[in-house]
Amino acid sequence: MNAEGDGGFRRIALVGLGVMGGSLARALGALRHPPTRVGWSPVRGESLEARSQGALDEAPERLEVAIADAELVILAVPLGATVRLMDTLVEGTRGDAVVTDVASLKAPVARAASVAGLDARWVGSHPLCGSAESGFRASSADLYRGARVYLVSHAPAEAALDRVAAMWRTLGAIPEHVDAAAHDANMAAVSHLPQLTANALAAVLSAAAVAPGALGPGGADMTRLAGSSPEMWREILAAEAGVGTYLRALSRALDDIAGDLDAGDLDAVTALMRRTREWRRGS
Amino acid sequence: MNAEGDGGFRRIALVGLGVMGGSLARALGALRHPPTRVGWSPVRGESLEARSQGALDEAPERLEVAIADAELVILAVPLGATVRLMDTLVEGTRGDAVVTDVASLKAPVARAASVAGLDARWVGSHPLCGSAESGFRASSADLYRGARVYLVSHAPAEAALDRVAAMWRTLGAIPEHVDAAAHDANMAAVSHLPQLTANALAAVLSAAAVAPGALGPGGADMTRLAGSSPEMWREILAAEAGVGTYLRALSRALDDIAGDLDAGDLDAVTALMRRTREWRRGS
Repeated sequence: MNAEGDGGFRRIALVGLGVMGGSLARALGALRHPPTRVGWSPVRGESLEARSQGALDEAPERLEVAIADAELVILAVPLGATVRLMDTLVEGTRGDAVVTDVASLKAPVARAASVAGLDARWVGSHPLCGSAESGFRASSADLYRGARVYLVSHAPAEAALDRVAAMWRTLGAIPEHVDAAAHDANMAAVSHLPQLTANALAAVLSAAAVAPGALGPGGADMTRLAGSSPEMWREILAAEAGVGTYLRALSRALDDIAGDLDAGDLDAVTALMRRTREWRRGS
Repeated sequence: MNAEGDGGFRRIALVGLGVMGGSLARALGALRHPPTRVGWSPVRGESLEARSQGALDEAPERLEVAIADAELVILAVPLGATVRLMDTLVEGTRGDAVVTDVASLKAPVARAASVAGLDARWVGSHPLCGSAESGFRASSADLYRGARVYLVSHAPAEAALDRVAAMWRTLGAIPEHVDAAAHDANMAAVSHLPQLTANALAAVLSAAAVAPGALGPGGADMTRLAGSSPEMWREILAAEAGVGTYLRALSRALDDIAGDLDAGDLDAVTALMRRTREWRRGS
């Protein structure tokens, strides 16, 4: 792996060391020629734990120290904090440092990067992976392997875009450049709808006095996302409310199935199951 | 493992060799003192494949031959076929042969066993495991390890119940004796609701032109069940329609979330997410 092939970042600052940031620290450390990894977490114990486990080379106490000499800064904090940190980055990083983030909505971050004057240096990333668990303890060196990573950028960031894409490829991920607004609208269906469906389903099962341990593997799959962080999702849902349309469409689809069952119309239910099985198989 | 500890069945007939029956054949073969496994599948190629892979000792062409000398017959076919086979079993098995099945609803099978005069010899099993894939190719020797298996029986089957429970324990499963009617009503929430929710969600995503490959791991979890067999589910839904109430409750829960988002009431949505996370964590 040469310096160009991996994006050429020799000193990388990781801001946030939860599942996403912690997994990046581990994955970068597992490279043949690992960059120097400097980490900072709002949870102080987390950066010390990461360093003691070899996931970080340096774990300074202050954020300003962590980012000062970095060639790449990766923000792996919740959406609101990502937006708020843009000004700090302008003031505290080298003039040629590239900045990326892993927030799951990109338009709000793109706006903040622009306002902060980072148009040529910021490339937004959204890795389509994660965990229903949170914190450094749930991180893994393999999290990004095979994962799609959506990238968004402003026009002046062409060179930075190539370098960030190369870094993701080095970690086994599959980067894809997309439009920020279209990406965010798409996430309402792809991500926010399944999340809130899991919460609603869990609420119904809970009201029916079903314990999670009584579920089979299918039911466990269907409620795993109910373990996701409410605080993280609050920020996402505040920024992108397009999921309402999909929630109502799902509500109608469920009412339709209930009506078909009431009417004994098993043909209709079976036809729906056949269509969705075909969809799941990708045809 | 002595003969008593594993239920003492030395010759076991497996009727049906899909995920459930095929996995039983493999798991029984992996025991320290495996019983003779005789298998029959309505799909002829499947029993030959199972024998060639060592999952069966004998693969006769005719069902009657497969069950004739068995000490235990395990029906691993869809619900309707399970019910219809009861008369065949009365005529074609030894007078002391025990019969079990793995259908996911138990009251219809309990009735059929009674009508056929198998009250003392039938013990219904419902293993809470499976796969969204089907067929022998999706079977696995480990499917039952750690899985809860609900058992139902009529009063005269006390001895058979102990033996079938012992067999499941030998395979690493956790048998639990329950009432058939209560079991089936409970499955409407535990199993049928998550299944139909996955189908409805898949229908909404399909209508939104989302490809399955565009989903993250959470969305993939939430739609995996859409791959389940429509034919198998048609029979289950025909026999137990109690899921309608839960489908409508979920529909209302989704509408409520959409309403909260419209009103900007993120406190309400966050509170729901906190409650369901607590439920998922089992507290």
